[in-house]
Amino acid sequence: MTFATHSTATSEAMTAPHLDFWFDFASTYSYPAAMRIGALARREAVKVRFRPFLLGPIFKMQGWSTSPFNLFPAKGRHMWRDLERTCAELGLKFQRPEPFPQSSVLPARIALVGLGQQWGEDFCRAVYHAEFAEGRRIDNADTMGDILSGLGVDSVAVLAAAQSTAIKDKLRTETAEAQELDIFGAPSFRAADGELFWGNDHLEAALAWAKRAG
Amino acid sequence: MTFATHSTATSEAMTAPHLDFWFDFASTYSYPAAMRIGALARREAVKVRFRPFLLGPIFKMQGWSTSPFNLFPAKGRHMWRDLERTCAELGLKFQRPEPFPQSSVLPARIALVGLGQQWGEDFCRAVYHAEFAEGRRIDNADTMGDILSGLGVDSVAVLAAAQSTAIKDKLRTETAEAQELDIFGAPSFRAADGELFWGNDHLEAALAWAKRAG
Repeated sequence: MTFATHSTATSEAMTAPHLDFWFDFASTYSYPAAMRIGALARREAVKVRFRPFLLGPIFKMQGWSTSPFNLFPAKGRHMWRDLERTCAELGLKFQRPEPFPQSSVLPARIALVGLGQQWGEDFCRAVYHAEFAEGRRIDNADTMGDILSGLGVDSVAVLAAAQSTAIKDKLRTETAEAQELDIFGAPSFRAADGELFWGNDHLEAALAWAKRAG
Repeated sequence: MTFATHSTATSEAMTAPHLDFWFDFASTYSYPAAMRIGALARREAVKVRFRPFLLGPIFKMQGWSTSPFNLFPAKGRHMWRDLERTCAELGLKFQRPEPFPQSSVLPARIALVGLGQQWGEDFCRAVYHAEFAEGRRIDNADTMGDILSGLGVDSVAVLAAAQSTAIKDKLRTETAEAQELDIFGAPSFRAADGELFWGNDHLEAALAWAKRAG
């Protein structure tokens, strides 16, 4: 085993391996991924960047008007059962949200505000918890206000910032970037060298890859 | 740790946990699953039943005229890369077959003949190897003849049996059963209590479930 000197540690920190975590708040398997990624990434010393985006426009370009889990009922039935098993194994509460999917535009915009400040990742986890553990609607300002207050954030100011042109445009460009990167579902993970992984099941492989890719 | 007495071992063998392994020879992720399932199931003392079926009719009912990996190009690009990574990790050779998908009707019929005899599982693995490791076509009698000869089986007799009405009907009823069981993709794994798992990534979880379900 070798130990880094102080200067090596500094240069390692500057070039720390990183991974982009692309997710949509309406995406079911993004729930366990969002809840797991922090601790796993710390253990692997990989820096994770949260990248909320909208799957809707990408699905639309594939000719899908809603989630494939609604369009293909057998696939949907399996997903709900599998998600239930996955959450049970991880000790995560689970409630099937109604309706599904919900619009994730508002929480995605708020997340973009928060990720530019210090509370973005906590907000993302709180939204997933509200949606999939408590069965709350995430497409309204009430739930968002509760979550923001819980984080000690000025919800009125944040909700206003989330509806600014700058943030609306940012969510559009993030979604366009996801599409350019060939992202077709969520959660997706992208390493610094462009390697793409899809699905909560592949989080560990993505982190291992990111560690090697830098 | 406890040790089974002789009589317990016998009764355990009679009620050994089992798992149905549903696969289509054209299915990409069924390749690593077919190659892994034998050793993993032995280690877990789970009896596996190979259940070849045709995904085509099930896809057709979902409105798909070909593989979703062709219909949705970004999904397809990710799959080929992910399959390459998966095979590399398992030490399995990999070549992308052309064309994709191939008709799996002939190998599925032959497999049904072989699974009623002693060479069915070896045949299934040999077909996947020919298709995904050697890039051979599996929709013609030449490749099938080579594989059968390699297994020391009378290929002329088997090819004739594979085209019998009984076997043709059997493949149809197997496919209908898959659909009734809500199977929508391959590989799928079904435990004795009806629990359904989808995808090569979930093979370990399916075996663990089957062990508990009996």
